[in-house]
Amino acid sequence: MKRIVILGSTGSIGTQTLNVVRAFPGEFEVIGLSAWNNLERLHEQVKEFKPKMVFCRSNDFIPSLPSDAHYVEQLDEMVVHNEVDLVVQGLVGGTGLNPTIKALRAGKQVALANKEPIVMAGGLIMQVCEDYGGQLLPVDSEPSAVWQCLRGEDAETAIRRLIITASGGPFRERPIEELESVTLEEALRHPTWRMGNKITVDSATLMNKGFEVIEAHWLFGVPWDKLDVVIHPQSIVHAMVEFNDGSVKAQLGWPDMRLPIQYAMFYPRRPENLGLEPFNPAEFGTLTFEPMDSERYPCFSLALAAGKKGGTYPAVLSAADEIAVDLFLQKRVRFTDIHRIVDAVIDRHRAYSHPTVEQILETDSWARRIAQEVALSIT
Amino acid sequence: MKRIVILGSTGSIGTQTLNVVRAFPGEFEVIGLSAWNNLERLHEQVKEFKPKMVFCRSNDFIPSLPSDAHYVEQLDEMVVHNEVDLVVQGLVGGTGLNPTIKALRAGKQVALANKEPIVMAGGLIMQVCEDYGGQLLPVDSEPSAVWQCLRGEDAETAIRRLIITASGGPFRERPIEELESVTLEEALRHPTWRMGNKITVDSATLMNKGFEVIEAHWLFGVPWDKLDVVIHPQSIVHAMVEFNDGSVKAQLGWPDMRLPIQYAMFYPRRPENLGLEPFNPAEFGTLTFEPMDSERYPCFSLALAAGKKGGTYPAVLSAADEIAVDLFLQKRVRFTDIHRIVDAVIDRHRAYSHPTVEQILETDSWARRIAQEVALSIT
Repeated sequence: MKRIVILGSTGSIGTQTLNVVRAFPGEFEVIGLSAWNNLERLHEQVKEFKPKMVFCRSNDFIPSLPSDAHYVEQLDEMVVHNEVDLVVQGLVGGTGLNPTIKALRAGKQVALANKEPIVMAGGLIMQVCEDYGGQLLPVDSEPSAVWQCLRGEDAETAIRRLIITASGGPFRERPIEELESVTLEEALRHPTWRMGNKITVDSATLMNKGFEVIEAHWLFGVPWDKLDVVIHPQSIVHAMVEFNDGSVKAQLGWPDMRLPIQYAMFYPRRPENLGLEPFNPAEFGTLTFEPMDSERYPCFSLALAAGKKGGTYPAVLSAADEIAVDLFLQKRVRFTDIHRIVDAVIDRHRAYSHPTVEQILETDSWARRIAQEVALSIT
Repeated sequence: MKRIVILGSTGSIGTQTLNVVRAFPGEFEVIGLSAWNNLERLHEQVKEFKPKMVFCRSNDFIPSLPSDAHYVEQLDEMVVHNEVDLVVQGLVGGTGLNPTIKALRAGKQVALANKEPIVMAGGLIMQVCEDYGGQLLPVDSEPSAVWQCLRGEDAETAIRRLIITASGGPFRERPIEELESVTLEEALRHPTWRMGNKITVDSATLMNKGFEVIEAHWLFGVPWDKLDVVIHPQSIVHAMVEFNDGSVKAQLGWPDMRLPIQYAMFYPRRPENLGLEPFNPAEFGTLTFEPMDSERYPCFSLALAAGKKGGTYPAVLSAADEIAVDLFLQKRVRFTDIHRIVDAVIDRHRAYSHPTVEQILETDSWARRIAQEVALSIT
């Protein structure tokens, strides 16, 4: 039995992780669950999965816990617990950084769906893995695809290029001058993936694709000039690896997060996944690929530039984006303000070049504050 | 230095293999070359690569050999030579069976481009590999693609399905009733691959795809009901593997035999292949996939049925096809006679169920004779 903790258990990743647990009785023991807002669903999950540890935002939520269970004050306590093998990290935004580092420092496996921590502190996190023997397993579908394509290959010598696909989001064909006026509802209507709100907006701006490029850079140790993005509206091919000999491997499948979640949870095994529809290439018919138009997606360019500059720039990128998207979700700024806010905050940043966790967190707070200020000056 | 012998050195596979040798000085030593008809080209190759052993059809071809080189009377002598590490087997048709078995019995690696031997005697060849430690490395692009997708995976437990792609050949959209009258020139005009004549005609009838399914069954130990073919006219995706967890991996690239040849020659390394154009998914634009119409391709159905029946049926299939295609190349039968001849010969066959090599060769001779008879009765 693999003993797991799920951070963000009531969110999109968390509930799908519990579906996998449910589908494979006897494979996983749920040791801990953590949630934030959705206390009702957490209550149900606690009843069903009987975790030993529960974390939630509020103390006024006291479901009846099994006798050997208890509430923890800090997420950290849950992720470092000696009975835990695997932490499924499905938090949203930068709050995931600390528990990720704590879990890796305790030598745990971390199935990482929340990409902001690795955007904010990629170099530092990889160093922690090396020093403490923790292991990062990507859950995000594109890095999972790269990971699967590299299975059995020599990642250090054989890679010519990683090609990550992007659906292009809901505004791929909208005239650029009309992007100013897109509504929240339109931005939340992702053409191929159903996900949480933050990542859905990041997918419309392609900030999310920038995050994935940064993630791939760190997870697979691939230099920036070997990382490419191609627009692929059907979201069937998730990523490709071109090897030095000219051969290309791709991972594909229906756009369904249960697949990369199960892959990370069972790695290296591939047990039957009964919930997924069988794949039939004749059924999807046509796959298309187009170059990315960077003018249409300024957030992607900002992300890539911040990734390359390194230091605390990616942390600023992530924090400013989180604030900007949050304001957009509250309908307080426009869609095109997102990249303007991020750009302005990056512009004002004086970076640390080899930051500690504390400096990254300090930068994160600074960037959030400045993003709010910039947003006020825009609106 | 890997020491190699090339069987069929003047053919399409042989000359491309020598291009790889040329492109990587210091990696390969050519120990032996064998050719049949193209004595002029063999002469040039002998001068350039200075093999120790040469085999050719005719004794009246005596180029000046280096002092330590000699002619061999039998291909067998060349493939079992103790200085040989790898045999690149690029022969045409059933003549490749004997040298393949001899090389594998001598514990050699055999890079197999010639698929007829494994069609004729798949079970027997796999048994020889197991008993004598020889190793088969597929060179054919679709089995090579499957092999690459299975790298690092657990082929015994994780495969849900292999999906081999077929371009559909030059007559994919021609009305079926017009196939009767297609000309040799049309049949030799393959839409995506440039290859030798026999395999080009087999690609037009999709007999070649049937052979590949049989090959994949034996090479990867995959049962018939887990083997699928899908029509993919662009020949960019060469094969896909669907795993039990619903994830699919595909191998793709420009249709260029240098890629699988180099892969087999260097396996497991993937050194830079400078001769190939870099791959760009935005450049090929659109990939399409369609179900296969078995009415259009009776040769494919014949192949699959013969593969499933087993015993000496696949040897009959291969031999009858070789005669039928040869007669078509001589313009002595029509395109649609190919499947009629093969079907009639299979119909008259009384099979051995667990044949020895001798019984397979006996069957091969029988099927060739009967195919000639059947062809005479048709024309």
